[in-house]
Amino acid sequence: RINGDRLWDSLMQMARIGPGIAGGNNRQTLTDADGEGRALFRRWCEDAGLSMGVDRMGTMFMTRAGTDPQALPVYVGSHLDTQPTGGKYDGVLGVLSGLELARTLNDLGIRTKHPIVVTNWTNEEGARFAPAMLASGVFAGVHTLDYAYARKDLDGKTFGEELERIGWVGDEEVGARKMHAYFEYHIEQGPILEAAGKQIGVVTHCQGLWWLEFTLTGKEAHTGSTPMLMRVNAGLAMARIMEMVQTVAMENQPGAVAGVGQVKFSPNSRNVLPGTVVSTVDLRSPDQMKLDGMRARIEAEAKQIAGALGVDCSVEAVGHFDPVTFDPTLVERVRKAAEGLGYTHMDIVSGAGHDACWAAKVAPATMVMCPCVDGLSHNEAEEISKEWAAAGADVLLHAVAETAEI
Amino acid sequence: RINGDRLWDSLMQMARIGPGIAGGNNRQTLTDADGEGRALFRRWCEDAGLSMGVDRMGTMFMTRAGTDPQALPVYVGSHLDTQPTGGKYDGVLGVLSGLELARTLNDLGIRTKHPIVVTNWTNEEGARFAPAMLASGVFAGVHTLDYAYARKDLDGKTFGEELERIGWVGDEEVGARKMHAYFEYHIEQGPILEAAGKQIGVVTHCQGLWWLEFTLTGKEAHTGSTPMLMRVNAGLAMARIMEMVQTVAMENQPGAVAGVGQVKFSPNSRNVLPGTVVSTVDLRSPDQMKLDGMRARIEAEAKQIAGALGVDCSVEAVGHFDPVTFDPTLVERVRKAAEGLGYTHMDIVSGAGHDACWAAKVAPATMVMCPCVDGLSHNEAEEISKEWAAAGADVLLHAVAETAEI
Ligand SMILES: NC(=O)NCCC(=O)O
Ligand SMILES: NC(=O)NCCC(=O)O
Repeated sequence: RINGDRLWDSLMQMARIGPGIAGGNNRQTLTDADGEGRALFRRWCEDAGLSMGVDRMGTMFMTRAGTDPQALPVYVGSHLDTQPTGGKYDGVLGVLSGLELARTLNDLGIRTKHPIVVTNWTNEEGARFAPAMLASGVFAGVHTLDYAYARKDLDGKTFGEELERIGWVGDEEVGARKMHAYFEYHIEQGPILEAAGKQIGVVTHCQGLWWLEFTLTGKEAHTGSTPMLMRVNAGLAMARIMEMVQTVAMENQPGAVAGVGQVKFSPNSRNVLPGTVVSTVDLRSPDQMKLDGMRARIEAEAKQIAGALGVDCSVEAVGHFDPVTFDPTLVERVRKAAEGLGYTHMDIVSGAGHDACWAAKVAPATMVMCPCVDGLSHNEAEEISKEWAAAGADVLLHAVAETAEI
Repeated sequence: RINGDRLWDSLMQMARIGPGIAGGNNRQTLTDADGEGRALFRRWCEDAGLSMGVDRMGTMFMTRAGTDPQALPVYVGSHLDTQPTGGKYDGVLGVLSGLELARTLNDLGIRTKHPIVVTNWTNEEGARFAPAMLASGVFAGVHTLDYAYARKDLDGKTFGEELERIGWVGDEEVGARKMHAYFEYHIEQGPILEAAGKQIGVVTHCQGLWWLEFTLTGKEAHTGSTPMLMRVNAGLAMARIMEMVQTVAMENQPGAVAGVGQVKFSPNSRNVLPGTVVSTVDLRSPDQMKLDGMRARIEAEAKQIAGALGVDCSVEAVGHFDPVTFDPTLVERVRKAAEGLGYTHMDIVSGAGHDACWAAKVAPATMVMCPCVDGLSHNEAEEISKEWAAAGADVLLHAVAETAEI
């Protein structure tokens, strides 16, 4: 078993970097705080005897050597970046449990045939630079490096500039590494495990996603002196689109979600009807037909809604992945590990996207999940217990050790 | 008649300060650009022999002396501040026509019994610091100086700090001046005069206003892993409130408007359901019953809508004035001036709020309006013709000269 106190202690130390305003974290990707978090993680890894490689996306690969020079490494990782008002565990738990697993193998003097590489993927969250899971996406060949470097944050800074600025442009070609297997341990970020009273989620699938960005163009006008019937109100179009998105999601129950997280009114002044509104829609389903059907319907209905108000509507897809089926052999290995360790468990579909979804394109991959309080995530109040954290890390240790061959 | 070319030339020179991004202006109150605009206006006024007084709200009073030391001044003014994406005429036309009127009287060697004071009120727009017409509101005793100084912009800077920073805290007590009369010349900012083919709007009333600020508090949560039925979605509540505001306005036709200009999602991230949404509602009517009825209904229904989603809703009134009836004697004087000059005219109700609305509390007051292209205002594309500008300024000259007694 791993050392639950040590794991918890590392989580709490990392959480001091990029503190939030309500007990969580704001350690968004490629900020100074992200740089600090990386430096701390690097120091811990080097203290544990791991050696570092960094690719041109800034992803950190920390290797514990194996006994067989020919054997491909087993990768285990997640991300250290957070949402602007994020929790202390989302991503971080997976990275630091990878480190804890290496520390535990060190303590026990256990060598594995395959090297084990603890990985910190850059920009998993996608909050600052859309899309999410950007570095693992480039790694899996889904995006080009140029595309990734050109992503912009709300201030217009590019991913490429900011990666350079914090000093984490590595020299490895992205995706050059070959993986024997990829494991990711993550908090559920939803309510299912807690409600079912299970310690471990054996993740069999991940739901697919579309991120759409709507640009609604109306006519900027005075709120007081513009008669109701002369308005070309982009804000009203957006409100109706939000209601429609909700309806589409509800009509696709069960097994679908959709919602709007980001809205920008221009000029955003009390007495000006907005000339432009940009808003994003996040829609997901584990069912490919539903996923694509919802996308088509939302796009078509948004155009109708806007058109009826005289508002122009353009839609851009800024993020996408299809539903993922994880590797059955690895899934079974996780299930057996939970069983063997005496932890209660259930099969689960990941509601959130993870780097594992892209890794699954280039290697056998799977995930382990632990519950989180009230299913809350992407919220500074995100919480888990030390025992929950440790149980998942134990399962990870056993599944990884078996795959890396003790 | 005034000199239309000179007036137009001054308008175009002022428009070079704080240029917008699409041909208009961004010269928001208490910015460096506002400071530059004030300095230019001061120079022009001093060149025309006017002497300056500034009150503690930064309002500029530029006096052309009268012949009778006992006679109270006739005030004529408006504002030089603009919306973030504002036009070149909104407010500026009124201030610079006041200056043009003084220049014309100088050219003609005409003295008036009453002094004439050309006025530039601080923060009429209310875009940066709500409420609008802030300095004239303090002048009229509607707000305290402390209240005004404590107003904050979106960056948290206060009105008081920013007034100090640009160096325009005057020494006059606000509201100490007594007015014989107040005139304001402004573009209509709506479509009525242009549609009716009239050169002059004789403004008999101004519609009343409520600015409400809604704070909707839901539960920040992951867009992917939070099931639809577990969401406490503040954004959806806001969308429904926007639709309801539209319905309330439509059900109060004719003679009412309502709309939402400002929306702020927090944390405003694609994959986070907003925990908090702050949005503003601007509602107006010339009919006091309708105005207050709409306000009550919008507040009550907003709370119901939010409550049904489990979202907390608090409402703050951040701006208000009752419908205004302008002074019948001055209104008649404006009508006669238009008539005498041979300009087509009609009576009109101001859709927008103006400093004249507050001035009307402490003095006989009225307004003159000219049309604007497509009724467009609070838009960089706001446009008027040189002839329209000059016609209104002529009417202003005659009405003011008669009131100030040649
Ligand atoms: N796990 C996680 O929150 N990833 C960000 C991408 C997503 O929104 O699913
Ligand atoms: N004239 C004008 O746009 N004033 C700002 C206050 C309002 O919104 O009516």
